[in-house]
Amino acid sequence: MEQSKENAQSFIQLDRLPKSLELVRLEDYRVALEYVDQRKLPYELLRQSTEMWQEVVDAITTLALRGAPALGVAGAAAFVMWVCNDCVFKDKMAALEQAKAIAHSIANARSTAVNLSWGVSLALAVFEEHLDDPEHEIKIACFEFVKKLEADDECSNRAIGAYGAALLPKLDGGCTILTHCNAGSLATVFYGTALGVVYAAAEAGNISRVYADETRPVGQGARLSAWELAQVGIPVTLICDNMAASLMAKGEIDAVVVGADRIAANGDTANKIGTLSVAVAAHTFGVPFYVAAPTSTFDLTISSGAEIPIEQRSPAEVLDPLYEGVEVYNPAFDVTPARFIAAIITEKGVFSPDDIAKACCLS
Amino acid sequence: MEQSKENAQSFIQLDRLPKSLELVRLEDYRVALEYVDQRKLPYELLRQSTEMWQEVVDAITTLALRGAPALGVAGAAAFVMWVCNDCVFKDKMAALEQAKAIAHSIANARSTAVNLSWGVSLALAVFEEHLDDPEHEIKIACFEFVKKLEADDECSNRAIGAYGAALLPKLDGGCTILTHCNAGSLATVFYGTALGVVYAAAEAGNISRVYADETRPVGQGARLSAWELAQVGIPVTLICDNMAASLMAKGEIDAVVVGADRIAANGDTANKIGTLSVAVAAHTFGVPFYVAAPTSTFDLTISSGAEIPIEQRSPAEVLDPLYEGVEVYNPAFDVTPARFIAAIITEKGVFSPDDIAKACCLS
Repeated sequence: MEQSKENAQSFIQLDRLPKSLELVRLEDYRVALEYVDQRKLPYELLRQSTEMWQEVVDAITTLALRGAPALGVAGAAAFVMWVCNDCVFKDKMAALEQAKAIAHSIANARSTAVNLSWGVSLALAVFEEHLDDPEHEIKIACFEFVKKLEADDECSNRAIGAYGAALLPKLDGGCTILTHCNAGSLATVFYGTALGVVYAAAEAGNISRVYADETRPVGQGARLSAWELAQVGIPVTLICDNMAASLMAKGEIDAVVVGADRIAANGDTANKIGTLSVAVAAHTFGVPFYVAAPTSTFDLTISSGAEIPIEQRSPAEVLDPLYEGVEVYNPAFDVTPARFIAAIITEKGVFSPDDIAKACCLS
Repeated sequence: MEQSKENAQSFIQLDRLPKSLELVRLEDYRVALEYVDQRKLPYELLRQSTEMWQEVVDAITTLALRGAPALGVAGAAAFVMWVCNDCVFKDKMAALEQAKAIAHSIANARSTAVNLSWGVSLALAVFEEHLDDPEHEIKIACFEFVKKLEADDECSNRAIGAYGAALLPKLDGGCTILTHCNAGSLATVFYGTALGVVYAAAEAGNISRVYADETRPVGQGARLSAWELAQVGIPVTLICDNMAASLMAKGEIDAVVVGADRIAANGDTANKIGTLSVAVAAHTFGVPFYVAAPTSTFDLTISSGAEIPIEQRSPAEVLDPLYEGVEVYNPAFDVTPARFIAAIITEKGVFSPDDIAKACCLS
């Protein structure tokens, strides 16, 4: 490899990144979700707008909207779209029953990222709490709840970024970071978790280059992370997933930073398929492996990663067309055991995987 | 994963696999190479025929012809095509000089697989040895040398298969094997090295299923290994490269068997990019990791894997079209340190990576 370490970047253009989703208020207490259709990137930045909560569920299942923290907000937003645009309030008890069914169907649009059910259940709780209020006040409360989730998401990501940036070694010319999938601004409302760490470190002049795993089969690294990094002006090199180990073996990577979809009570972490492979290589070659995620990703109801449901997706994502005699196995996530994780970077600070219960208790 | 272990296969249809290349004799001592254009698989089995040695070099550089053992024979064949179809014998010393230049250019068509220069240099030696003979005798000697290489390749692969099959655990229902890239019949003249081990074990009723890594960016696993296995009737599941670690973590894989492009004196092994990642995961999760390769893959002139040249290929293999601001790193191979390799399976027996010099000394 002939790439020399460029001078560290101390200026990045975050304003070149779109907000990935945003609930907007219309007339008569109606709402709409505006979001980036991530299936079109990197070749087209397509912004969508919908007033139908079912279309948000479709966007989630088709990966037009994806990323664990973004799913938390999108799930809550979809529920609130139903509240504001569709709910019939005449019989409040009937409305509550329907609300629970709608919440359930949104929360089950995808199974692994716990943030989705977290966001939906919080929105449902707001609805329930205000159920005795006048109709327009329920709608306002729900809408404002989602707006707070949106704002909290960026705050949380900026805190993750700051904590993570402080964790990286200070190197002449800056650090070279490897990331897998997209835990960037697009995976959140804005700024990102794993890439939030990169952005914060870059602003401090401590990033030389990011290697982005392409992240087969859907290509979130090639299409989203590499695009984000290129947009903001951070040197980025795209690699196939299977190249990460050889870069680490050659000492080219200073740290790995990835996001998470669900973190069990013992610190085992589900993230995009391939994360385990990167973590094992990092462990073998002495590269610190960091998980960057908001505490909404923690699921203390399960004791270990073995209990995390792993979504299976279509064979067509891997090979299209299939041919006779060949089967395809396509899990969307894998579980990285806590022992391979150097630290979990949250909005409340940096924790050992053994200590995540402590992170959740901090207010 | 819902796949149960099927009954072990004890019958496989090897006759459904094509010979991947074959030098044929034409009139007037001319020769032609017939080969399978591997770029068209799995959707089309396209057989090509050429009398031009330069077209064989093109086929090698474009990966129409690939696989370390196959390259050994193809390189020798290309040289012999020049001898039989193009060489001007009037001035024998001038012919020898040109032969050396042609041999050099063929041997450098690709840089990592040592088999290519091995085959070419042996063919050049035959040419040189017979240089004082009449023209047609030189041609016959060269042609017969390639035919012997072809025959030896299959014998060698069948021996590798037998030694490797004996190494696998005897399991009820047979073993589940993971392989990376294609070290199958298509990577050789016939039968294959890593897949040779699978075929021999399947004939003994000891294969349950093979997981084939798709092998980005060129997809030799998805297009070639999975196709071969499906052709002969062995249950095969295609996965993305980044899924192998999670299968191993779950105990789904009994052994990993891969091929090799060059093995240094200390047992360090260059093979298709991504092999290191699989080896590291296998080591971490206690899965035996075997390299299956003929002794022509050994390069005792280099002491360790650090000296193996690694071919860099086009960014377009990884992402097409590229977009602004994104670079691509695309090494075609990586080096697996000897410590991750349980054994190297050759046509002369099974060796510890520490013992490969011994393997080379056996006749």
